[in-house]
Amino acid sequence: MASNEVPDIVVGRLPIYLRALTFMTEEGRQITSSQELSQKLGISSAQIRKDLSHFGEFGKQGTGYEISYLRDQLKGILHVERTWPVALVGYGDLGHALAHYGGFAPKGFEIVAVFDNDPEKIGQQVAGKTVMDIAELTKVVRERSIKVGIMALPSSAAQKVADMLVEAGVKAILNYAPINISLPPEVRVQYIDPAAHLQHMTYYLE
Amino acid sequence: MASNEVPDIVVGRLPIYLRALTFMTEEGRQITSSQELSQKLGISSAQIRKDLSHFGEFGKQGTGYEISYLRDQLKGILHVERTWPVALVGYGDLGHALAHYGGFAPKGFEIVAVFDNDPEKIGQQVAGKTVMDIAELTKVVRERSIKVGIMALPSSAAQKVADMLVEAGVKAILNYAPINISLPPEVRVQYIDPAAHLQHMTYYLE
Repeated sequence: MASNEVPDIVVGRLPIYLRALTFMTEEGRQITSSQELSQKLGISSAQIRKDLSHFGEFGKQGTGYEISYLRDQLKGILHVERTWPVALVGYGDLGHALAHYGGFAPKGFEIVAVFDNDPEKIGQQVAGKTVMDIAELTKVVRERSIKVGIMALPSSAAQKVADMLVEAGVKAILNYAPINISLPPEVRVQYIDPAAHLQHMTYYLE
Repeated sequence: MASNEVPDIVVGRLPIYLRALTFMTEEGRQITSSQELSQKLGISSAQIRKDLSHFGEFGKQGTGYEISYLRDQLKGILHVERTWPVALVGYGDLGHALAHYGGFAPKGFEIVAVFDNDPEKIGQQVAGKTVMDIAELTKVVRERSIKVGIMALPSSAAQKVADMLVEAGVKAILNYAPINISLPPEVRVQYIDPAAHLQHMTYYLE
């Protein structure tokens, strides 16, 4: 089945499955089932089987899934058997936390360039890299063939910086600014807005 | 219609609509349409109308939605016409960024208590508050009737701290640790895992 036929909501669950399988591998586990994954993830076992069936036959009737095999298959499907170089724009409190975040490397991502427009931040050292002037963004992103960008900056700057990233060749943007940005259809964007997640939950509270 | 009849995925889109409407209000706008919201948000106008129809009749045929009215209605539905006190657990790089994040207050949340288990961090001042010993978590959360928690801590501590929060009365947890946690059914959890968002996008990249 061609990639574009899989619903995006299914694609969005694959990293969750990959995360669970990776933990299990680290625990020395070898076999799991859609039932066990269901219990761990709060997603129905039927949904998990259906999601995975878009990509092949990974389980054997009655014996379940071989964890490391399924993990490797999901890594391939998500294109994270390699490491993607990432440009981080914005070196405020959040950018600082992201630059030092240890969770990217094991998942296939490495922040290789950090940009800001604040003269006091430009030139600072961060995890072996130097914060660069945002004026250099287009040149650096192009030279290093960076396809993935993270924006940790004020809403007022988000659209302008997104346009710069796209102009330089970026195809996927993770946006922490709480504002929707307009991008060409071939560029992907995901939003992280913690307040929206909190509001999603307070709906259920009195 | 009772709250529990609305699909959770619909509930999850309401904060996105609220965010867009809030921006429009700030821009001095008065009327919008499902078509305009669709263009801004990349969600079909039919979906937007259907989502909102779960909660009432907000638009008038041919004249669209009154922005500030719909915004206020959504605030009510999401229970954010009030401000929820929030407990933040973990004062590392990410906790520091969250404690200083300006995006919570306008959305109905205020971090009123910060906890860590590191003696070097306990006692530090953060935005007018003092970082407290995690040993005090249960007492403080209970005394202040805190129902919402944010966990910005290592995966290894996530389940234990989640159990403490629930024991103290928390009903909604935003978890930044990249690990799935087990909670009683009446407690909500949302995950923020930036690497999972990146993997969701690299699926579409070559």
